[in-house]
Amino acid sequence: MSNPVVDFWFDFASTYSYPACMRIEALATDAGIAIRYHAFMLGPIFKAQGWNTSPFNIYEAKGRHMWRDLERLCAELGIPFQQPDPFPQNSLLPARCAIAGSAEVWQPEFCRGVFRAQFGEGRRIDDPQVIAEVLERAGAPAQTVLEQAATDQIKLKLRTVTEEAGGLGIFGAPSFFTEDGELFWGNDRLEAALAWAKRAQ
Amino acid sequence: MSNPVVDFWFDFASTYSYPACMRIEALATDAGIAIRYHAFMLGPIFKAQGWNTSPFNIYEAKGRHMWRDLERLCAELGIPFQQPDPFPQNSLLPARCAIAGSAEVWQPEFCRGVFRAQFGEGRRIDDPQVIAEVLERAGAPAQTVLEQAATDQIKLKLRTVTEEAGGLGIFGAPSFFTEDGELFWGNDRLEAALAWAKRAQ
Repeated sequence: MSNPVVDFWFDFASTYSYPACMRIEALATDAGIAIRYHAFMLGPIFKAQGWNTSPFNIYEAKGRHMWRDLERLCAELGIPFQQPDPFPQNSLLPARCAIAGSAEVWQPEFCRGVFRAQFGEGRRIDDPQVIAEVLERAGAPAQTVLEQAATDQIKLKLRTVTEEAGGLGIFGAPSFFTEDGELFWGNDRLEAALAWAKRAQ
Repeated sequence: MSNPVVDFWFDFASTYSYPACMRIEALATDAGIAIRYHAFMLGPIFKAQGWNTSPFNIYEAKGRHMWRDLERLCAELGIPFQQPDPFPQNSLLPARCAIAGSAEVWQPEFCRGVFRAQFGEGRRIDDPQVIAEVLERAGAPAQTVLEQAATDQIKLKLRTVTEEAGGLGIFGAPSFFTEDGELFWGNDRLEAALAWAKRAQ
């Protein structure tokens, strides 16, 4: 019997994807579940909902609560927190790098590194030097990955993955899909998604 | 030393307010926390955000996830679930009754009864007969309360409470406020709000 798989969909600019990405690997390992990482772009999905920026910017009171909530959450998890400026960041470059690393062992650590740089250290994830550094720390061949990320093949792949997300009914991030097609939305639902995957096995 | 107080803000038509209301009293009692119930109307607050109905109706994929998520959640909590039709229901009458019962011992059980009737039994909460029945079951003098609910005084009070909610930065329901002014939004944050209230004591 092979391990159940949970698909983890996220945008590197998504606030609650930060705690989800920092937590998922340890929780999944404990539960005997394999995680597939899908970096995608929330922008086109938000656009289809009529939003030209993050809903946390559009709806001010909601945004205010989210930043405070994320701060409380990170304190409780013992992970660093800094509000990124600007928000949202342009997540195109790290998303392409994550796609380029889909079959690589460094991919999960790279994803955590991007989130940590942005939400933990206040660094800009659209800066190739920041991303190169994160790649190196994750044990990836930084220059090779950055070159791959700039190819039409990877650019097209990210567009396809993003369209796939929309087609699956994903409307926000993080989102989790179990193999029997259950969608769980939000960092709050990570445990529920893993428990479902385990039961459905 | 008096018990800490948590203010519980909800709209009877709000989906995630259902599990929150069914859970809050037992959790608060265990934690030695007193709950103040504030029924308010989400409608004017949604309107200020540009929405003329529930965002779960406006954003279809989000709505689809919410219904499934609520169904899973209720199953896990062991509480009944039926999707109300229409949605959202008009929650004006039960909100006015809850306000009329602010100082009464039957208020919490009345609130649970309204949510149960709507989301557990698929009944209409804008039906005075349904509300009368829920009042009676909660040990309230149904006719007296319904008469009070129809007075200008109670109507005005509900409008004032709703304006207060907006002024406090409440943008959705359920919402929880601790005495030191921390806002927690969502059924998912109930435990965090109670824990915060306990620590802040």
